Amino acid sequence: MKKAEVYVEASGISEVRRQAVEVTEGLKRMYFDVVRPLEADFLFNEFHSSPWGVGDFDARPSILLIGQYSTGKTSFIKFLIGRDFPGQRIGPEPTTDRFMAVMYGDQERCIPGNAAAAQADRPWTGLQKFGVEFLNRFECSEVPAPVLQEITLIDSPGILSGEKQRLQRGYDFVKVCRWFAERADKILLLFDAHKLDISDEFKRTIEGISFAHSKISVVLNKADMISHQELMRVYGALMWSLGKVMKTPEVARVYVGSFWENAKTDHIFVKLFQQERADLLSDLRTLPKASSMSKVNELVRRCRLLKVHICIINELKESMPSFFGKSKKTQELIENLGDIFLQVQKRHQLAVGDFPNLEDFKEKLNGFDFAKFKKMNTSKMDRLDHVLSFEIPKLINNMTEDSKGKVLNPFE
Amino acid sequence: MKKAEVYVEASGISEVRRQAVEVTEGLKRMYFDVVRPLEADFLFNEFHSSPWGVGDFDARPSILLIGQYSTGKTSFIKFLIGRDFPGQRIGPEPTTDRFMAVMYGDQERCIPGNAAAAQADRPWTGLQKFGVEFLNRFECSEVPAPVLQEITLIDSPGILSGEKQRLQRGYDFVKVCRWFAERADKILLLFDAHKLDISDEFKRTIEGISFAHSKISVVLNKADMISHQELMRVYGALMWSLGKVMKTPEVARVYVGSFWENAKTDHIFVKLFQQERADLLSDLRTLPKASSMSKVNELVRRCRLLKVHICIINELKESMPSFFGKSKKTQELIENLGDIFLQVQKRHQLAVGDFPNLEDFKEKLNGFDFAKFKKMNTSKMDRLDHVLSFEIPKLINNMTEDSKGKVLNPFE
Ligand SMILES: Nc1ncnc2c1ncn2[C@@H]1O[C@H](COP(=O)(O)OP(=O)(O)OP(=O)(O)O)[C@@H](O)[C@H]1O
Ligand SMILES: Nc1ncnc2c1ncn2[C@@H]1O[C@H](COP(=O)(O)OP(=O)(O)OP(=O)(O)O)[C@@H](O)[C@H]1O
Ligand SMILES: [Mg+2]
Ligand SMILES: [Mg+2]
Repeated sequence: MKKAEVYVEASGISEVRRQAVEVTEGLKRMYFDVVRPLEADFLFNEFHSSPWGVGDFDARPSILLIGQYSTGKTSFIKFLIGRDFPGQRIGPEPTTDRFMAVMYGDQERCIPGNAAAAQADRPWTGLQKFGVEFLNRFECSEVPAPVLQEITLIDSPGILSGEKQRLQRGYDFVKVCRWFAERADKILLLFDAHKLDISDEFKRTIEGISFAHSKISVVLNKADMISHQELMRVYGALMWSLGKVMKTPEVARVYVGSFWENAKTDHIFVKLFQQERADLLSDLRTLPKASSMSKVNELVRRCRLLKVHICIINELKESMPSFFGKSKKTQELIENLGDIFLQVQKRHQLAVGDFPNLEDFKEKLNGFDFAKFKKMNTSKMDRLDHVLSFEIPKLINNMTEDSKGKVLNPFE
Repeated sequence: MKKAEVYVEASGISEVRRQAVEVTEGLKRMYFDVVRPLEADFLFNEFHSSPWGVGDFDARPSILLIGQYSTGKTSFIKFLIGRDFPGQRIGPEPTTDRFMAVMYGDQERCIPGNAAAAQADRPWTGLQKFGVEFLNRFECSEVPAPVLQEITLIDSPGILSGEKQRLQRGYDFVKVCRWFAERADKILLLFDAHKLDISDEFKRTIEGISFAHSKISVVLNKADMISHQELMRVYGALMWSLGKVMKTPEVARVYVGSFWENAKTDHIFVKLFQQERADLLSDLRTLPKASSMSKVNELVRRCRLLKVHICIINELKESMPSFFGKSKKTQELIENLGDIFLQVQKRHQLAVGDFPNLEDFKEKLNGFDFAKFKKMNTSKMDRLDHVLSFEIPKLINNMTEDSKGKVLNPFE
C-alpha cells in the first residue's frame, strides 16, 4: 500500500469538516446566546448538570486504542493519519510507554501531560485526579494532519503479561482506560493474530471498560502474517475467549486484517483484508457525523429539561404570598410538589419524561429561597422555543442525508 | 465433488480394518482364555466392574451428530459413507424424526429400535431405560459400506426452535444425547452458516454433553452459501456464543466448510474449505486406531487390577486358620487390611496405584466367606503375567507406527 492519508482518501474530508464546524458553531451560538443565560436565571445548574464550556462543543470525537504490547497500536495511528507524529515510537519490543493524545495542531509539537491537564480549554483537566505519576506518562502530540481535524486518537502503552508492569506503574491503568473510554466515541481493542495473548491485566481492562460495549470494536491485526487456516483458528479462539470476557450477548464487530502501510498483497485472504479495512475506515468516518448529531441531541435534551425546570420554578414563585408566611408556604409547596408537577405538565403541555425525579427535586428545593430565581421573561422563553422548534430542525436539515441516518433524529 | 466414498479414498481402509480386527481378536482371546476365568475364580466382578462381553470388543468406534434441523447431519452421513442408506431422509424441512445408528451390515436393512435394543449382542440394550416412546424413535440402519466396517454413525433428529417439539417427544432428548455421547468416540455439533441458530434446547443439549468436551468438534456447514465476509461474522458469532455455552477454556476445533457431495468450487474460501474437509476426514480416520489402542489400554488396566486383587485375596486366605475361629480372624484381617495391602505390595512388587480403595474394599469384604475364593493357581497366574509381559506388547508392536502415536502406549 502506498503511504497516504488512507482515512482521508475516500472521506471527502472538507465537506465533513465543514458540516461539523457549521453544526458546532450553530450549537454554540444557541447555547451561549439563549440557553445559558436562562440556565443562570433559574439556577438550572444547581438542579441538573454543570454549564457547558466552549471545549464541550469543540472537542473532536476520539478513538481509544488498547491492546497488548506490539499489537500495532502506534503503527495503526501512523497508518490512519498517513504520517509520523511527534513522540511516536514503533518497534518490536514494548515501545509506547505513555498515553498519547494525537490531535490536530497547526504545527508539530508535544505538550507534556502536566501542562496539557492544566489548560482549562483542553479536555484533559479531569486527568489531574490520577496524579503526577500518571501525568508524567501522558502527552499530547499535535500534528497538522487533516484527518485529525475530524478525530482525536488516543494511543496507550502496550500491556505486558505478568504483574511486574502493573506494580511499577504508579497509577491505576484500568481506571485511566475507563476515563478515556467514557469520553471516547470508539474504542478499538487490538490483537496480534501472530501472537494472540490476553493477559490478566488486559482481561481486567476489557472488563473495566465493558460498560461501553456498544462503542467497542476489535481489530485482529497482522492477520496476513499467518496462513488462512491458522488465522481461522486464531480468530475462533479470540472470539471464544472474548465472548466469555465481555459477557454481552451481542457479538463485538471484529475487523480482520493488517492495518499498516506494509500490508501483504499475496495472502489467500487478501480480498477479505481489503474489505475489512474499507469497512473499518468507513465506520470510523461516520464518527464525526455521529458525534455532531449526538451533540445536537444533547442540546435538545438540555433545552427540554430547562424548559420544564423554568415552568416548575415559575409555578412555585407565583404560588408564594407577597409578604408574610413565606417559609410555611414553601414547606407546603414542597410537600405538594407532585400535584404541582401535574399542573405544570398540563398547563404547558410538557412531556412527562422531561420532568426531573420528584424526590431528588424536593430535596434540592429544601432550604432554597425562591426569591433567588428570576422572574420568567416571556421574550427569553420565546427564544428558547424558537431554538427548539426552528433553529435546531434547520440545523439538522442542513446535515446531509447520510449523516442523518446514523443517529436517531431527536425530533422523531 | 464426485460421489465417492470420501472417507475411504485416502484411508487405506483394508490395512486399518485388518489391524483393528487383529487387535480385537487378540484381545478377545486373551480376555476369554486367561483373564475371565481368573476373574470368576476370585469374584473380581463383585469387587470391581462386571465382566466384558463379546460386544464390548466388537463395537466399532462411533460418531454422534447433533444439531438444529436442516443443518445437514443426514447429508453429512451420506457424504461420509458415499451412498444412500435405508431410512435416510434429506430435505429442507425437518426430516429425520428419530435417532439412527448407521452401521455395517452385509445387506441393506432397517432394524426397528425395540428389536435392536432387545438383542444382547448389540450395544443398544442400555437404551431400553428410555422407554418404548423412545425406542419407537430409534432405528438401526445396516449398510454394506466399507467405511462402516470402521465406524458407526449416529444420526439424530434435528432440534427445532421453540418448546413444542420438546413437549411432544415423549422422551428426554438431552438424556438420550448424553447416553450416546458417553459411548461415542467423537461428537460432531453441526451448525448451518447460512442460518445460524442456537435454540434453548440445543443449548441445553450442548451443556448436557459438555462433560465429554474433549470428544466434541464443531462443523460449521454450508459455509459456501454465504460470502466470505459474512462467513467471518457468522463464524465469529458462533465462537462467541459457544465459548459461553461450553464453559471450557480450551477452544473446540471447528471445521468450516461444506460437507456434502455438492460443495461449491467457486467460493473465495474454497481452498480453506478443502483443507478443512481434509482435516476433518483425517481426524475421523484416527478414530479406529485410537479406539484399538484404548481397548488395549483398558485390558492392561484390567489385568493389573485383577493381579492385585488375586494377590490380596490369596494373602487373606493364607492367613486364615484351618478350623476354628474363622469369623473372629476375618474381622481381625479386615481391620488390619491397610497393613496387608502394604505387605502384598512389597512381596509381589505391585504398583500402589493398582490397589483398590481401602475403605471400599473393607466394606465389600464384610460378610464374605473367604472359602468361596478359589486357591491361587500358579500356572494360571503365570499365563496372566505372560499376557501382560509378552502378548500385549507384541500386539502393540504389530500396530503401525502411525497408530501407536495416537494414544499413549500403556507400557510407557
Ligand atoms: N499490521 C502489521 N503487520 C505486521 N507487523 C506490524 C503491523 N503493525 C505493526 N507491526 C510491527 O509490529 C511491531 C509493533 O508495532 P507498534 O510499535 O506499532 O505496536 P504497539 O502496539 O504500539 O506496541 P507498544 O504497545 O509497545 O507501543 C513493530 O515492529 C511494527 O513494525
Ligand atoms: N453442505 C451443504 N450445503 C448446502 N446445503 C446442504 C448441505 N448439506 C445439506 N444441505 C441441504 O440442507 C437440507 C437439509 O439437509 P439434511 O436433511 O441432511 O439436514 P439434517 O440436519 O439431517 O436435517 P434434519 O434435522 O431435519 O434431519 C437439504 O435440503 C440438503 O440438501
Ligand atoms: Mg505503541
Ligand atoms: Mg437428518
